[in-house]
Amino acid sequence: METLEAIRSRRSTRAFADRPVAKEALERILEAGRYAPSGGNSQTTHFLVVTRRETLEELAALVEREFAAMEVTPGMYRSMVNSIRASQKGGYVFHYHPAALIITANRVDYGNSMADCACALENMMLAANALDLGSCWINQLRWLNENPALLDYLRGLGLEEGERVFGAVAIGYAATENGLPAREPLPRTGNAVTWIE
Amino acid sequence: METLEAIRSRRSTRAFADRPVAKEALERILEAGRYAPSGGNSQTTHFLVVTRRETLEELAALVEREFAAMEVTPGMYRSMVNSIRASQKGGYVFHYHPAALIITANRVDYGNSMADCACALENMMLAANALDLGSCWINQLRWLNENPALLDYLRGLGLEEGERVFGAVAIGYAATENGLPAREPLPRTGNAVTWIE
Repeated sequence: METLEAIRSRRSTRAFADRPVAKEALERILEAGRYAPSGGNSQTTHFLVVTRRETLEELAALVEREFAAMEVTPGMYRSMVNSIRASQKGGYVFHYHPAALIITANRVDYGNSMADCACALENMMLAANALDLGSCWINQLRWLNENPALLDYLRGLGLEEGERVFGAVAIGYAATENGLPAREPLPRTGNAVTWIE
Repeated sequence: METLEAIRSRRSTRAFADRPVAKEALERILEAGRYAPSGGNSQTTHFLVVTRRETLEELAALVEREFAAMEVTPGMYRSMVNSIRASQKGGYVFHYHPAALIITANRVDYGNSMADCACALENMMLAANALDLGSCWINQLRWLNENPALLDYLRGLGLEEGERVFGAVAIGYAATENGLPAREPLPRTGNAVTWIE
């Protein structure tokens, strides 16, 4: 797929088909993530690729439990409020049951962690689109990235000491008739541009 | 250019030809930036596109002056140390004299400002590559994003109250024989991958 077309037609997929994604496709998506730029070419992003169903289920249950124990406070980010309320109600699955959840971690003491992970995540979402796969940015593990229970669980998966999660992406075939993600570009009404020319 | 190829071959350009970029090309690059995802689809990234030479020169002089007045402290990020030392020596131009400097700003009170700006910057660097233009992530305006003199200058350009700079990108024709950016992919030795499958 042509680059500008892949950028324009990338949309968030929040319902995935119960169908695995070939490891070769995930490897191409990871290559796209690894080729993102990094501050001073530090290349310290750590990609944890979860395709094991049991792990995805354990993560969903753990995240629901931790959000359910949290209190909504004034001025809290709307999406986080939604996660807390849905968890308290029960049956909350933060990752939408994807074929793969790719978690991007980076060093907690490094000022470009968020920027580097975001570039890697954007590259992976574009690569997924180019490969006819749906994707969605997942922020919940970042919101909980100092949560002791979650840190402990992620360390069991391979998260290193000194690393924290700065984002994640859910990837899989879309739960549509043809398995393709929605691609009709949505208009941009915000994201203002000021020319100084 | 094909998406995965654009991702693999995007490299930083740090020497630009003294040649303008057509406004139509900049508009396509901006469209790529505006189509980046945003937290809760908030679309609050503000793009300041500087092509006016006088403004680019004033910005370079202002950044040099402010860095020259800073002290290097222990544990400071290496690239920032380099900027301070180069500014104290004199003749430091943080943006490499590009045809355009696109500054991404966002709300200071919004938790996804860095993530949203980074996705927009990555999209714009990929679009530039697809359009045969060189690009380079520019971090200096972010490091100085609470600096009163710089804030004041940027407000004169259109930065809104409550906004701060979270990154920028320099764009132009590369100062190479054919005007094309270097595209030979550099190997990734870091950016580790852990499979949980």
